[in-house]
Amino acid sequence: MQFADRLNAIETSAIRELFKLLGKPGIISFAGGFPDPALFDVEGIRESTAAVLASNPGPVLQYGATEGYQPLREQLSVFMKNKGATVAPDGLIVTTGSQQALDLIGKTLISPGDKVIVEAPTFLATIQCFRLYGAHLIGAPIDADGVNVDKLEQLIEEHKPKLVYLIPTFGNPSGATLSLARRKRILEIAVRTGTVIVEDDPYGELYFGDAPPASLLALSDSVPGSRDWLVHCGSLSKILSPGLRVGWMIAPTELLARATMCKQFSDAHTSNLTQAAAAHYLTLNRLDGALAVVRKTYAERARVMGESLRSALGDAITFNAPQGGMFFWARLTGAQGKETNATVFAQRAIEKLVAFVPGAPFYAHDADASTLRLSFATADVAKIEEGVARLGQAL
Amino acid sequence: MQFADRLNAIETSAIRELFKLLGKPGIISFAGGFPDPALFDVEGIRESTAAVLASNPGPVLQYGATEGYQPLREQLSVFMKNKGATVAPDGLIVTTGSQQALDLIGKTLISPGDKVIVEAPTFLATIQCFRLYGAHLIGAPIDADGVNVDKLEQLIEEHKPKLVYLIPTFGNPSGATLSLARRKRILEIAVRTGTVIVEDDPYGELYFGDAPPASLLALSDSVPGSRDWLVHCGSLSKILSPGLRVGWMIAPTELLARATMCKQFSDAHTSNLTQAAAAHYLTLNRLDGALAVVRKTYAERARVMGESLRSALGDAITFNAPQGGMFFWARLTGAQGKETNATVFAQRAIEKLVAFVPGAPFYAHDADASTLRLSFATADVAKIEEGVARLGQAL
Repeated sequence: MQFADRLNAIETSAIRELFKLLGKPGIISFAGGFPDPALFDVEGIRESTAAVLASNPGPVLQYGATEGYQPLREQLSVFMKNKGATVAPDGLIVTTGSQQALDLIGKTLISPGDKVIVEAPTFLATIQCFRLYGAHLIGAPIDADGVNVDKLEQLIEEHKPKLVYLIPTFGNPSGATLSLARRKRILEIAVRTGTVIVEDDPYGELYFGDAPPASLLALSDSVPGSRDWLVHCGSLSKILSPGLRVGWMIAPTELLARATMCKQFSDAHTSNLTQAAAAHYLTLNRLDGALAVVRKTYAERARVMGESLRSALGDAITFNAPQGGMFFWARLTGAQGKETNATVFAQRAIEKLVAFVPGAPFYAHDADASTLRLSFATADVAKIEEGVARLGQAL
Repeated sequence: MQFADRLNAIETSAIRELFKLLGKPGIISFAGGFPDPALFDVEGIRESTAAVLASNPGPVLQYGATEGYQPLREQLSVFMKNKGATVAPDGLIVTTGSQQALDLIGKTLISPGDKVIVEAPTFLATIQCFRLYGAHLIGAPIDADGVNVDKLEQLIEEHKPKLVYLIPTFGNPSGATLSLARRKRILEIAVRTGTVIVEDDPYGELYFGDAPPASLLALSDSVPGSRDWLVHCGSLSKILSPGLRVGWMIAPTELLARATMCKQFSDAHTSNLTQAAAAHYLTLNRLDGALAVVRKTYAERARVMGESLRSALGDAITFNAPQGGMFFWARLTGAQGKETNATVFAQRAIEKLVAFVPGAPFYAHDADASTLRLSFATADVAKIEEGVARLGQAL
């Protein structure tokens, strides 16, 4: 059987191979990108699902609009307004998780050979998704304040990319958050150069202390013309439940219309049952309470992971403590002659029954092999202490 | 904003414009492709959803495997076995409706410029979906026994297509069912020429009298080597509920692995909640009872539509009475100087408050403008009689 040429652009993920080892008994995993299921508001989702199947079973079980279930679009409009962004219900479409928003962005915008700028490092599934549409990816360097805007501006001038993809808040894998000043500059650059900016924001609600800077979307009101170049992807996966597969995409009208058309031929529409349940849930005034618990729990886990890493690995590792989200991004320094290759380290760690993801696959090119990603979302404090101690032994 | 070149391959559907008119008060619609929501087994779905959220909320609300929720894969394996096809649970993947299976087939198999043979006419969303991947579509003629196999064989020899897409049972829009003899010949041709055959089978369970011939998949056991060239798409949309968005795809191992990889970057996975509910539902032994009601209801509506068409439109229209599914496919003959253009007729019909879909958009090329599709699934018998009477006045 002869497959489509586009499949040559991506390879089987090294991470997939690693994940096969995660079933080992007794393993402590910092490898996943999953939220902690113990924190799901199961009662609220149960109530919501039962309510919509009781009150409105016909439309909930029937085919629905490709754009999304209207009551959910209305609730998401309110949700975004509470985050400081003005979006009409028909200014967004519901997607099957925000992964589908990425797919629709690729399908509607990227022709084979088009250049796309991403953070280095960035979300692995974005790299693969865009490459399937023929994107030539260019990595822009980041630091603790997110993408380096001077460098990004240079790259935009030089490559005239089809779009720039950013996770500005508590990035995956970087954990970094783009500063307010950089956010404003990026919007200005978008307008000046006529460049589409995609803001992927699945983690913005998971802050530990103060709320992060306003999203690019919320800030776009203060930079005239910037809304015309801005795409925003949101998701309920990290704040309510990934199993519902409910995300959304906000974009200029013309792009949204084309994304809707493409979605029609991708999956017709997102499940009405999960959309209706999510819409109902958002009317229950339970989300703030559920999120408060998630924030407090993750904050404590992040604090313990940071302290444990310092005590168990000392100067053999560097990292910036994240202010929210789910990830530590770290680098092996080689201090005291320790290992600097994170893939080698990962293999040794698995032998000690602790897992993490090496950082190299998160780079579109020129990978830094000394980097790694550690998730603190699913292991409790005791497991984090024990797991990091094992990392110390493995290194 | 500059969009991807692939969008130039498709145009805004004429049908979309027509559908905007369907909200008119008092309209009787034969235009949709929706099942009748009054026939949904709401109680069974309610029970199933509650059961999985009570017994297993963590995995149901968490991220899941891209291949599908394992208990559902197991139930679908049993479901297919009851339809005469042997498929191991890991011989299928769950898709977000069977529309996503079409998208994954396009993504994994079609390079721009590749030739693909479809029935003339065929499912509109397949035409658009494959064109977005750059397919050059070639239509193979059909009659009441499905695709003309002699002609199909010629077209395969001549064009060496990447794949052949068929809806062999109660086709959309044709209503036609491929004969057993033709099914066997197609499998033989697939093996001899090394051609992928995609069998889309959303309607096979909706038979009015005897069950239709066994699916290509079920017959593949009797044609050595044919399974290596066969892709089968199934769906719960027409037999349980479209709002769940649960379909599946059965394919040779290598193709299934690549489709799974592409799905990972399309929507990560299908909602676990709807998958788990569907899996639970399939253990309840309710489906046969629910399907018996659907079959009886649709059979009666089809009978009434056929009789009404004959009495209201006489020899100005020809059609073959379908033996199952949801559609009449008809042709305006021009007898007694009546209109032969179905698009003109559709506009006049809307004025008389009755809607149907002109047939032209269902052709990849060389459309027959005198054809039209009438769905009998959602209107009750009285509405069908009244609606067809209005068609008579409109013509």
